Amino acid sequence: MAIEIEQPPVGLSKVATSDTHGEDSPYFAGWKAYDEDPYEESSNPSGVIQMGLAENQVSFDLLEKYLEQHSEASSWGKGATGFKENALFQDYHGLKSFRQAMASFMEQIRGSRAKFDPDRVVLTAGATAANELLTFILADPGDALLVPTPYYPGFDRDLRWRTGVKIVPIHCDSSNNFQITRQAMEAAYKEAEAKKMKVRGVLITNPSNPLGATIQRKVLEEILDFATHKNIHLVSDEIYSGSVFSSSEFVSIAEILEARHYRNSERVHIVYSLSKDLGLPGFRVGTIYSYNDKVVTTARRMSSFTLISSQTQHLLASMLSNKKFTENYIETNRERLRKRYEMIIEGLKSAGIECLKGNAGLFCWMNLSPLLEKPTREGELALWESILHEVKLNISPGSSCHCSEPGWFRVCFANMSEQTLEVALKRIHDFIVSCDKEREREIPDIFLGVRTI
Amino acid sequence: MAIEIEQPPVGLSKVATSDTHGEDSPYFAGWKAYDEDPYEESSNPSGVIQMGLAENQVSFDLLEKYLEQHSEASSWGKGATGFKENALFQDYHGLKSFRQAMASFMEQIRGSRAKFDPDRVVLTAGATAANELLTFILADPGDALLVPTPYYPGFDRDLRWRTGVKIVPIHCDSSNNFQITRQAMEAAYKEAEAKKMKVRGVLITNPSNPLGATIQRKVLEEILDFATHKNIHLVSDEIYSGSVFSSSEFVSIAEILEARHYRNSERVHIVYSLSKDLGLPGFRVGTIYSYNDKVVTTARRMSSFTLISSQTQHLLASMLSNKKFTENYIETNRERLRKRYEMIIEGLKSAGIECLKGNAGLFCWMNLSPLLEKPTREGELALWESILHEVKLNISPGSSCHCSEPGWFRVCFANMSEQTLEVALKRIHDFIVSCDKEREREIPDIFLGVRTI
Repeated sequence: MAIEIEQPPVGLSKVATSDTHGEDSPYFAGWKAYDEDPYEESSNPSGVIQMGLAENQVSFDLLEKYLEQHSEASSWGKGATGFKENALFQDYHGLKSFRQAMASFMEQIRGSRAKFDPDRVVLTAGATAANELLTFILADPGDALLVPTPYYPGFDRDLRWRTGVKIVPIHCDSSNNFQITRQAMEAAYKEAEAKKMKVRGVLITNPSNPLGATIQRKVLEEILDFATHKNIHLVSDEIYSGSVFSSSEFVSIAEILEARHYRNSERVHIVYSLSKDLGLPGFRVGTIYSYNDKVVTTARRMSSFTLISSQTQHLLASMLSNKKFTENYIETNRERLRKRYEMIIEGLKSAGIECLKGNAGLFCWMNLSPLLEKPTREGELALWESILHEVKLNISPGSSCHCSEPGWFRVCFANMSEQTLEVALKRIHDFIVSCDKEREREIPDIFLGVRTI
Repeated sequence: MAIEIEQPPVGLSKVATSDTHGEDSPYFAGWKAYDEDPYEESSNPSGVIQMGLAENQVSFDLLEKYLEQHSEASSWGKGATGFKENALFQDYHGLKSFRQAMASFMEQIRGSRAKFDPDRVVLTAGATAANELLTFILADPGDALLVPTPYYPGFDRDLRWRTGVKIVPIHCDSSNNFQITRQAMEAAYKEAEAKKMKVRGVLITNPSNPLGATIQRKVLEEILDFATHKNIHLVSDEIYSGSVFSSSEFVSIAEILEARHYRNSERVHIVYSLSKDLGLPGFRVGTIYSYNDKVVTTARRMSSFTLISSQTQHLLASMLSNKKFTENYIETNRERLRKRYEMIIEGLKSAGIECLKGNAGLFCWMNLSPLLEKPTREGELALWESILHEVKLNISPGSSCHCSEPGWFRVCFANMSEQTLEVALKRIHDFIVSCDKEREREIPDIFLGVRTI
């Protein structure tokens, strides 16, 4: 029989009870607000439009067409021994055909200006896992990774939560279009040292999320030199590399290494994923590409915790090894994203709003600082609340990306139809007009000339 | 230009450089030996037969037939908006249809003697990830989990490697058929305390891997009472619950909780997977079913690192929500496993080898202790080497499962055809005969009567 003991609640770990998962940020709160009242053209035209989700929906027709024409990708052929073999395949090296196709796709995206060896491709269930896994390998609890701001809010979870590693920000600002400088890196390094942390690496996103811009070759060289000088790692998260509007505008860290004949390359690790460029976040496909043999071996072993379904590897091996498909997809997707980008930039401009000049990604980095009542984080969040609850747009406040300058917002444009984007732009336009009227009432004319948006 | 700095090799983390991943054990070494010289009836009849891999291949025809008759499971229907929706689905709650199907399948396996609420099902990419994830939630680095021996060698990696948690063995032995006792649990608890570790939980596998036997109701009650008394967690890994040869012989911890009206249930967490019972390890489908709300919430959040492909969720939601299919599958699979089990037990018996009486799983627990030259771990590994390299069978030595009694081996029987199993049994038979001859030459007749196998 059951014993009747009264015990206090059984305890959980520090990881479980900590809030370093970062999910309490407005970045995620905005998603919830959308979920509760989602915009739909006919059934809920006054609902919230989701502009806080970096999803690529502009090229699904190409994927669908491929799958229609290639039924073998989603099935296992006749005779069905294929199904059994596939269902049993759990080798953490991944399907060879898929690793080869991934390596080749990564080369294609980079205009064949860098080579990728399939034996260095480690597969993980998404870039989320890839970034965490690398952090486990590169740093001990309490150590620091330097990450340029603004950065993807999910990094707070991915790099810190279970690893116990700290993020020390490399502060970038609008004075030089948020570019990373040697001085900013040195300052972050010193800050970490002052806090008695051991710095183990720099993690960059190139193209940058949330900036929607690529990192210039000269800056990349400086970052690699900095990492070499300090003898630390460099992780380059390039999950938007296929979403650069023009291939020639993107320089991968892989190209820099190739030009340097792979000198000092053992400190460099690239993260990639099919969630953004192919628009397949549900399939959970991420990769680590490391130039360090020990990291490759350890990451592969560790990928046991986060393997990709063999069914999905099978489908994507078929799709990505079809060069005709990938060439057309990459080119068409780039063109469509550029078109979307121009549409939103023009729309915002006509409402008097400026954005950082971008050339990549599924979002733009919008400057609403002139609208802030107070130039603080609180001021930014007050404006964000208004936009979410009154204008009914979910955008991501820069503070959730740890931006040190208030008033910037990430606005996604590829997760909706053009019609919905037009509705969103109209709402922003009307909001700005109403703000202007408000200000005209409140502010003496003499100050109005100062507004620049 | 590249700077020319000579630096010492860049450092990696303690996790990366430690060997707590446990992959250097003979358990994994045997896999490699098989990979280098795999048995194949016609092309490599003298190759190594893999009996170290707990794979279920006996019921694939049922899955294949289902997929032939239900093409909608592996595709997305016409019109193809289904594909887009599916490919974009990355909510860590998982597809509702799949969670419901999983909960219902878990009930079915338990003969509907326990209820499962789909809202408590957390999805992970395999049980490997599920066990690690729970460990992250239940214990801090340096804390202890008590695990009955012999245990699945992968636990050394899953529970310890990245979490920093320690395993303290609950020693079980052949004197009572390796059953867990209150005294053994108390002894392990005291050992952990003596080493200044905080004990956070007990982790059992039921049915046991490697024993191939279920845990009796009375023993389960004792384990739960022990966990309650110590106010620690109880993780019940039930990934072989559908591979019990007769449903009535398996008692899930869920049934005990139901009988106790869920009193003290917040300390109990069940791990399940489709890798063994359905034979789908490649699809990476694991679950955590927790009776603790906070654990459910935290595990779901943490599952971001190890989500299941939405494509695979879609296929399995279809398959597992078809009651006609699941009922037939569960029954047929049980019968076939029992038949295989009887075949191997008979074959071993006729070679004079005894096994622990089993009633579940894809393996038997074989006693070769009478063959040991020395009753030590070294003696066991010497015998294992002979069997691997001379007899050309890869079986798993008990020491790799941390068994405290030398001479026991786990032998898998469901990952091959009946023909191959016959070849393996013939090889064992011949080996025993040759051992006997060897002994007759070496050992005075007077000792021969002592041999009991």
